[in-house]
Amino acid sequence: MDRREFLSAMAAAAGRQALAAAPKPPNIVLILADDLGYGDLGCYGSSIRTPNLDRLASEGVRFTNCDSADPVCSPSRAALLTGRYPTRVGVPRVFFPQDQDGLNLDETTLADVLRARKYSTMCIGKWHLGRPAQFLPTARGFQEYFGIPYSNDMNPRVLMHNTEVIQETADLDALTMRYTEQAVKFINTNKTSPFFLYMPHTYPHIPLGASQRFRGKSAQGIYGDVVEELDWSVGEVLHTLKQNKLDQDTMVIFTSDNGPWYLGSPGKLRGRKATTYEGGVREPFLARWTGKIPGGRTCDGTASLMDVFPTVARLCDAALPAKSLDGVDIWPLLQGRMQSVERPPLLYFDEWELQCVRWKNWKLHLARYNTPPYVEVPARGRHTFTLPRPELYNLVRDPDESYDVAAENSEVVKDLLEQVAKMVPTFPPPVQEAFAATQKRRANPITPTGAYPYPDAVR
Amino acid sequence: MDRREFLSAMAAAAGRQALAAAPKPPNIVLILADDLGYGDLGCYGSSIRTPNLDRLASEGVRFTNCDSADPVCSPSRAALLTGRYPTRVGVPRVFFPQDQDGLNLDETTLADVLRARKYSTMCIGKWHLGRPAQFLPTARGFQEYFGIPYSNDMNPRVLMHNTEVIQETADLDALTMRYTEQAVKFINTNKTSPFFLYMPHTYPHIPLGASQRFRGKSAQGIYGDVVEELDWSVGEVLHTLKQNKLDQDTMVIFTSDNGPWYLGSPGKLRGRKATTYEGGVREPFLARWTGKIPGGRTCDGTASLMDVFPTVARLCDAALPAKSLDGVDIWPLLQGRMQSVERPPLLYFDEWELQCVRWKNWKLHLARYNTPPYVEVPARGRHTFTLPRPELYNLVRDPDESYDVAAENSEVVKDLLEQVAKMVPTFPPPVQEAFAATQKRRANPITPTGAYPYPDAVR
Repeated sequence: MDRREFLSAMAAAAGRQALAAAPKPPNIVLILADDLGYGDLGCYGSSIRTPNLDRLASEGVRFTNCDSADPVCSPSRAALLTGRYPTRVGVPRVFFPQDQDGLNLDETTLADVLRARKYSTMCIGKWHLGRPAQFLPTARGFQEYFGIPYSNDMNPRVLMHNTEVIQETADLDALTMRYTEQAVKFINTNKTSPFFLYMPHTYPHIPLGASQRFRGKSAQGIYGDVVEELDWSVGEVLHTLKQNKLDQDTMVIFTSDNGPWYLGSPGKLRGRKATTYEGGVREPFLARWTGKIPGGRTCDGTASLMDVFPTVARLCDAALPAKSLDGVDIWPLLQGRMQSVERPPLLYFDEWELQCVRWKNWKLHLARYNTPPYVEVPARGRHTFTLPRPELYNLVRDPDESYDVAAENSEVVKDLLEQVAKMVPTFPPPVQEAFAATQKRRANPITPTGAYPYPDAVR
Repeated sequence: MDRREFLSAMAAAAGRQALAAAPKPPNIVLILADDLGYGDLGCYGSSIRTPNLDRLASEGVRFTNCDSADPVCSPSRAALLTGRYPTRVGVPRVFFPQDQDGLNLDETTLADVLRARKYSTMCIGKWHLGRPAQFLPTARGFQEYFGIPYSNDMNPRVLMHNTEVIQETADLDALTMRYTEQAVKFINTNKTSPFFLYMPHTYPHIPLGASQRFRGKSAQGIYGDVVEELDWSVGEVLHTLKQNKLDQDTMVIFTSDNGPWYLGSPGKLRGRKATTYEGGVREPFLARWTGKIPGGRTCDGTASLMDVFPTVARLCDAALPAKSLDGVDIWPLLQGRMQSVERPPLLYFDEWELQCVRWKNWKLHLARYNTPPYVEVPARGRHTFTLPRPELYNLVRDPDESYDVAAENSEVVKDLLEQVAKMVPTFPPPVQEAFAATQKRRANPITPTGAYPYPDAVR
């Protein structure tokens, strides 16, 4: 059975079970934080006050092994909305205001397939999948858009409604409040129709902004203030659902696009945004659907933001696109009927470069940059180097990827390398070319494993 | 009261209390691990099996805020053995085999002052404070030396006994075992005299080595094997003390020189070896003295490896050197009579560069390198840059230094900056010069705080 057959069989089998449990397609509220750390919510151990998100967790399921599919913004969002690896959909890296491209136009978004099922659809927040009109949310399945098209550290920082700029320089302090107003309005307006609200917040990406009501109120500085305002926003959305008696008709998902950047806590995980250590890619992930998803559960099974598309699409009885998905249906995990679902190994890219592969609790590091992100590039350039020996980490015993156990588990290493060798040829040429080039850039073999390899030579 | 007067008064006051409790000068066993992480022992949350160290903790006191005074090997050891900042004693950086210098010869070591009190003294392990004969342990207060003079990743990797090379290339797998044999022999031989055993292990610094008995036995790879053998070694030393009925006459201290390097866990702390984030400098620190130090306690008060010298010297009734110490007497912390002792702010250097200052639970970051250690140096060089704004972290609320709270605590920032301005002039000229040069190298002010500053310009 090849990958596509495998995924189809999985979807069909899970589908038979799930549809019995979910006769009526639910509304979908998908809330995405930006650069929020794995350790930044109360329900994940933070002392930042997030009562509404903690309640969402207690009324639904909390994942401890959800991977974002990429450690930076645009690619992660592309994966979330297409169910496919960013390298397959033309988004290997973050978009900048001067860029004229966006998420490949021949890709289908989750909004597209829900719109085809007559869902009302709106995107509120940071889009970051292309600025020209044909790439904006209004051209990608969303009937309405309100938000900023890029990250808030990029200029010009315009606030848009649909395809129009409504504020030349968005007021950063007001953004969360304005997004929330829009969300409440959208739910109230569409309460009788099935709806899909995609709410990719601007925060806690820097520069941070919060309204007067929250500024200076947390014990963790402006970052804490911002997260507490995000939590308030989620509370407003939940309150609006409740007021409209929509709790039993709505699946609410909350997650983040990648790990914390300069501020924010990765919990006990190693690394931060833009690294393929877990701190860069593991996300808080909460899902609630009253009456369908049992409350108060924690799920340790491996999940990916790419799973949202197939899971939601099928629950909403939407047709899957012709192109095969990389995500799998995690409804059995959401419902608690299974602890894990079968899936191909998860790949961790940075731009076109394959750096790690995960399978169950194992994570194999194959290659790594010679320098971390966001520092000055060395004279010979920033490149991914193949590690002298692959490093294997057991993420259950060793969440901070501190103990390389490759030597003791050579069969696992061998198996994962073989799986990678089979998967790489299914990717577009730039991935295959980068993989081949990286194989030739070997890190100095006397370099100790576990950190950035020293580039002995760039060949 | 100036710093020296303050320290003298502190020592005198603490001394009056302590001597009543400790009439007989104890034997001292000071065991130092190399590159062990804050999170690598069972009693600090690791799943590596360290029953002997955990027992040491349960029979004595476990510190949660012990700072190593420097994030790399040689300077940290210099601080431990002199009670003074490494930048004061000529050891701002790690020594390499080609170096002809060592710990300044006009500095007094803990072994010197204990030797003057007729202690038998031996150093077993990695010295790393100078290789020429006048810098070796046998010239710095130790009657006997057995070990390797440099780190085990430096060549030639000779094993020495006193000033003689006894093995041209030390067998890495046998080192812990051989050190342990020597320690047991030393204790058995000196059981009737007061003795000072300083045991700076070679491990878990890479390249890792373990004996056949431990190799492949832990669940955390070779690193875990090595730590489990270190734990065994501590167990052998404790067993020997017990056999000789010396538990009540001996203070045993266990700690490490700096944070974990490529492997090893910093726990929930940010950063690793060679960074001035807590992961680079906070150390496990255990102390046991049966009958004098109450068992089973955790101490959250701030301590430093520099405190070992004044604390031990006074307990052993040894004269303090003429030069003022930077460490303070922490006997009240060891005994549990106080939760914290008054002390000047602790400074965090990297080489000559002052990067952070700590006072109580506050840590202020002033400056940071433009790139992390052990990666290729960028075209314009590796320099410390003054941050656009100092970053303040509350280490109790925020152990992983993720939430900058400087804006909310401007008085604390101001006070610490003033304290730094007063302290810097007490340091040797290279520190003052580096401090002035770094002030001129300002990181780009639009760089977000919290990570390596981007070097906008090197002036």
